[in-house]
This record gives sequence, C-alpha cells and structure tokens, in this order.
Amino acid sequence: MGASAKRIRLDIETIAGCSSGGPGTNRLTFTPEYWAAVDYVADQMAVLGYARKTTPHGNTRFRRREVGWGEPAVAVGSHLDAVPHGGRFDGVAGVVAGVEIARLLDDTGVRLGRPYEVIVFAEEEGARFGSVLAGSKALVGRLTERELAQLKDAHGTSYLEALGKTGEHASTAPGDVLGAGDVAAYFELHIEQSLVLEAAHIPLGIVQAIVGLRQYRVTYSGVANHAGATPMSLRRDSLAAAAQAIAAVEELATDSPTGVTVGTVGMLVNEPNAANVISARTVFSVDLRDTDAAALDEVAETVLERIEHIAEARQVQAQVTPTAESAPVVLSSRLRDALIRSAERQGIGYLEMPSGAAHDAQEVARVTDAAMIFVPSIGGRSHCPEEDTPYAATALGVDVLLGAIEEASVRTA
Amino acid sequence: MGASAKRIRLDIETIAGCSSGGPGTNRLTFTPEYWAAVDYVADQMAVLGYARKTTPHGNTRFRRREVGWGEPAVAVGSHLDAVPHGGRFDGVAGVVAGVEIARLLDDTGVRLGRPYEVIVFAEEEGARFGSVLAGSKALVGRLTERELAQLKDAHGTSYLEALGKTGEHASTAPGDVLGAGDVAAYFELHIEQSLVLEAAHIPLGIVQAIVGLRQYRVTYSGVANHAGATPMSLRRDSLAAAAQAIAAVEELATDSPTGVTVGTVGMLVNEPNAANVISARTVFSVDLRDTDAAALDEVAETVLERIEHIAEARQVQAQVTPTAESAPVVLSSRLRDALIRSAERQGIGYLEMPSGAAHDAQEVARVTDAAMIFVPSIGGRSHCPEEDTPYAATALGVDVLLGAIEEASVRTA
Repeated sequence: MGASAKRIRLDIETIAGCSSGGPGTNRLTFTPEYWAAVDYVADQMAVLGYARKTTPHGNTRFRRREVGWGEPAVAVGSHLDAVPHGGRFDGVAGVVAGVEIARLLDDTGVRLGRPYEVIVFAEEEGARFGSVLAGSKALVGRLTERELAQLKDAHGTSYLEALGKTGEHASTAPGDVLGAGDVAAYFELHIEQSLVLEAAHIPLGIVQAIVGLRQYRVTYSGVANHAGATPMSLRRDSLAAAAQAIAAVEELATDSPTGVTVGTVGMLVNEPNAANVISARTVFSVDLRDTDAAALDEVAETVLERIEHIAEARQVQAQVTPTAESAPVVLSSRLRDALIRSAERQGIGYLEMPSGAAHDAQEVARVTDAAMIFVPSIGGRSHCPEEDTPYAATALGVDVLLGAIEEASVRTA
Repeated sequence: MGASAKRIRLDIETIAGCSSGGPGTNRLTFTPEYWAAVDYVADQMAVLGYARKTTPHGNTRFRRREVGWGEPAVAVGSHLDAVPHGGRFDGVAGVVAGVEIARLLDDTGVRLGRPYEVIVFAEEEGARFGSVLAGSKALVGRLTERELAQLKDAHGTSYLEALGKTGEHASTAPGDVLGAGDVAAYFELHIEQSLVLEAAHIPLGIVQAIVGLRQYRVTYSGVANHAGATPMSLRRDSLAAAAQAIAAVEELATDSPTGVTVGTVGMLVNEPNAANVISARTVFSVDLRDTDAAALDEVAETVLERIEHIAEARQVQAQVTPTAESAPVVLSSRLRDALIRSAERQGIGYLEMPSGAAHDAQEVARVTDAAMIFVPSIGGRSHCPEEDTPYAATALGVDVLLGAIEEASVRTA
C-alpha cells in the first residue's frame, strides 16, 4: 500500500485556497491565510493523534501526543509561506509529504524505531521579513529572538510582533530549539524548481549539496532633476547606476568559472519614479548562489566592488546591506544512501543532483543528519502561478521517503 | 514702480501650501490641492476685477469682467500642477508673474493696447494622466475631449472624469479654444531648471527654441522563475532586459551628434519584485529630447530598434506605446525682440538660449506668437523639493515681461 496521490492532491488544493487573492498563491508568513494553512495541517495531524507545538520563533512541530519533545525523532518538514504571486507546491509539497507519511504509518500500523515528527518552518522565502530561512535558522539556534525582533516587514511590523509576541525570553522548554538529541534524522521533499528532472525524464532527484547564498540590498542615492533641462554630463541618475549594476550581476554570474553560479536582481524600487524626472533613489536586491564556497565568495566580492565603482564613477552614493547569507551544504551521506536504497528497492529511477535553491534542510543539517529529495517541476516553473508538479510524482517521492525513514529510524545504539 | 518680490513670495508660498503632503510639492492635476491653488489665483484676480473661465478641457483663463473672450488679448500663462515630490516654482512662478503683472497694471493705471489675460494650463507635467502638455494641447485644439476621455490616471480615472465631466460636446463657446484671433501674443515666464544662467551669473534667459520630445512606455514580459534554481542561460528576465535598455537610452543620447540630446528612463515598475524571483514584467518610460527635429527622429528610431533587439535576444516580449510627442519649436522673433528691448531699456542682463524642457508656450506657438523668459534655478535643481529661485529674480523677470507686453499690445492694424 503506497502513498495516495488523491489525498496529496486534496491537501495541496486545500492549502492553495489559503491565499489572500490571485493571481497565484499569496501567503506571507504569519498572515491570517498563513495560519489557516497551518491549521489545516494541524487538523489532519490531530485526527491521527498528533499534538501541535508552536515554537517561540513561530515554527510548528507535530508529534504524537504521548511522545515527549526531548526524545530523538525522525522528522519530515518544509514550509507553507509563499512568495507574492507564487505557486501551490513550493514548500507545501514537503509539508503534505510529511502529513501523508503520518497517514501511511497510521494506515499500515508500521512501528518506526523512533518517534515520527512533522515540522512546518516559518518564513522560508524571506518574502515578508526579508530574511530567507528565518524560521529554520531560529529553530537551530542561529537567529535569536532579539534578531527576529529586528526583522521588519514593508509596513514596519517586526517578525515577533506579527507572531504575536513582544517580549524576549530564552527558549529552554523542550522542543523550542532543535538539536541532534531530539531529531536524529531530517528528510525534506521539495519541488525541483528547475528543468533538469523533466529534461532527463527521471521522476526523483536525490540532493547531494545545496548552494550557498549571498543576498544584499543596495541603495543608490543620486539627484532628482528635470529630465529635459539637465545635460547628460551633469546627471547623477540612481536608476541608470542601478541598470549598470544589474548588468554587472548578470555578467559576473554568467562568466563565473564554476558554471553553476547564478546572480539575480529581482527587486527594484525607484524614486520619485516619474517619466520626466531623473531618479534620485533606487533600491534593489542582489542574490548570488553557488555550490562552491570559494567561488561564491569571489563572485560576491567582485559584484560588491563593481557596485562601488559604478557609484564612484557616477557620483551617486551607494549603501549596501547584507540581507541573507548561507554557506553551501553537503547533505548526510548516511541518509542519502538510505534514500537511494529505498528508491532501488521500489524500482524508482533517481538522479543525484545539487540544489540551486536554498532549503530549510541546510539549516537543520547544521545540527543533525539531513537529506532531501526533489520531485519534478513541470516546465521548470516555480515562484509563479504556473508552478506545477504531478500529484503522482509527489506520491512516488513519499513512497521513497517512507522506505528511507524506516531504515533511518532503526536505533543503532 | 516695479514688481514686488514680497508679493511674489507670498503668492508662491501660499500656493506651495496647496499640496497633499511632503516631502516637496504634491499637486496632481484636478486634485483638491490643485483646485485650491487655482482658487487662490482666482481670488487674487477677482480683487482686480477679473472673471474666471474654466474651459471644457480644464484650463483656467482670466480676463477683466467687461472684456469679451473673442477679443484679441495679450496673455501670460503657465501651469500649477507638479510632479510627485516636486518643487514650488516650476509653473507656479509663471502663473504668479501673470498675477503680479495684473496687479502692476492696476497699481500704475497703465492702459494696454489690448486686453490682458492670465492662463493656467492643466496637466503640463503629465504626472497624473501620463501625457505632458495635455491642457495646452487641448486649448489649441490638438487634443479632443474624446482623447482626453481616454487619458487615465494610476487608479483608472479619466482626465474628464477627474475634471467632473462625463459627456462629450463640441467646444464652440468663446474662450473654449485659443487661436490668433483671441490671443495676439503669449508670454511665459518659467524657471530655467538647469545650471546655465547660474553659471554665467546672468539673471534672465530669453528662449530661442524649445526642444522636441518623444516619450514612450515600454513593457518587457519575461518568465517568473526561481532565482536560485534557474541557470543563467535559461532565464527570460524582464528586469535584466530593462537594465540593458536603460543603458542603451543613456548611451545613445550621450553619443548623439547634436550634443544637446537628452535621454531618460525615470519611471520603472517591476513584477513580482521579490529578491528571489526572476522578474516577469517590467514597465518603464523612455523620454528623449532635442532642439533638432531630424536628430530627435534618428535617436528615437535607434532607441526603439535597440529595445526590440534586446527583447529578441533575451526572448522576452516588448510592447512599446508612444505616450507623448512634440516637435522642436522656434519662438516668435517679434516677441523675443520685444523682450530684448525691454531688458535693454531697464539695463537687465540676458542670455539667448534654448529650452531643454517642454513648456505650454510651444503649444500656444502653434496658433499665435509666443515667447518665453527664464529665471535662474539655484543649483539647477528642479522637479524636487530643493527647487529654488530668488524672488527678486522673478520680480526682475516680471519687469522685463511687462515692458514687452506694453510693446506687444500696441495695435499695428
């Protein structure tokens, strides 16, 4: 008896309904639609006898009511927050996989060697508070509540205010932070978000490493002036400077020797933003990723130098703020091998591959063994309304995951 | 007895108070703050015995109550609408000059050979409805009410709806349109909006020609996708395409052989605009100006070709909409000579110069004799809160203007 594509579809469609309106999915962390999605998962888990715990950082954990939070579990997790106008599957597929595994354990009566846990990480995308992986970083102790209190959304509301907490306290209760002592193995299923599996006609990716990330917010400040009366030579145009920086990010990522570096300017806000006024202030993001730590350092350094040189040459002011940083992460070979054996036992094809996107698994991997599997993204589309993955593909992924969990939950001590 | 810098200052400061909040002046056409500014001018004129007429296109004209609208007048005009976060002087200085001349005529009892008129043109900046010089174009019959009904602001409200009109009717009443038969000579005082007068230490510019303008709105449509998982070679990034177009506009304007061409991208709006999502849709403005019609045509053609080539090379869709167009205009030599004689009689220094900005005078020049004078902009700043001009400089400009009006109003028939 395997995973049910029908149940997975119902879960994903129901969670897609938790959105503040179209096009696509709009579900920023800690909004009413976000909590509606978490509540749906909690309802599914409650039926199966699982208790819900909200950590002081806004992550949500589920274990059977009779199991303590200190006992080492095997966990499956992902996230439910979405980028603006995002898709239905990013993060959601992994959480739903965790729920489906709980159902399968219940259906089959299989007894694992360790307790089973499902985790919903908050603010994976960084789309509300500007800091990716905030929830998983906090759960493994790499972001303090003090730091979370300083993360603000576009309206000035802090992460902790949005969560409904104002004070700060040390998190010492069981389950408030995660370590090897309470999660012995972590698995995450995620959509691939690229074209590799689809092009290779392979249903499953087993992730070897996750790229590292450097993310910055750059502000160029120039001088507003009349677009007609100001000679080209006398301009200090912040948008023209930003355009040159965007070209530099693209060029330096494309020319990077590793061949897998990516560089993106995805956010740009311009002021005063009128056709006949030279721009005075342009804010934009820079996002750089690579699986090779040294190559990532080098491209980041070169991009930042270029941003400064552009500012100097154009007599605009540059202000650069790092907004996110993560090192490349090699995942657990023990858990990867368990996934590979599970796939081979079930005759399911797989490809070992890197992840070009950041995932909560890379934070969990800092404190315990972690592994990931990818299911195919149709057309490689992600972070957009067209994002899609066949429900049967996710069901196959769940079957492989369950086999690996059974193996990984055997107590070796 | 000359113009009063004190009265001019009071006028400009009072009109600056008609703003929807800072920083700078925020007074879009047909907003409550816009009508407050027009009402202030009307109050000043009413005291002097002038009647107010709102044309079907939202322009406001003032003549003494006993004078008919069909009789050929000598007119002074400019505009009261402002770009977002704009300055206190752009347009306002010219309207206030018109009011101050009405006061001086009243103070001195000087009888002109023709009726005197003050005109406030609507939507000169195009900042609300996206079409510069809309009011003056309509007043000289180059924009119909049907076309005005199609101009929409950011909220979808049309020019005519904002004006409080819904139906369309032919404008045949006296004063509804302007021609040589009802305005024999038009003068406009305006701030220079550049650094030429200040650098030359000359208090007054007499404008020879006004640059022509080509303005476009460009939309690049690409494909939203994950910033980490999408290889550089597979991207269709609308913002990266726009950055390349911005660089092309700057390069082609700078390298233009006339040496006075300017090219500006001042407005850019990006979607979905998140740091970790490749951009799917980027809208931006292109503004090109030159006093040489052939050079302007050539640079516009080359820019549009470049915009298409960039789209083809990047596999994004390009949509280009012309939003404004005007030909370079050589101003009336008769009225320029009258201004020069007036300045020389009064011993006031002047510089003959082109205007890099578009002005309502260029539309009026299509139907009757028109001329312009510039007063210095401190630091060349304009379209920003720091925009400034000494009140005494505007008073000097008014004195020169009044002398020229006296000469131009002599009936030669």
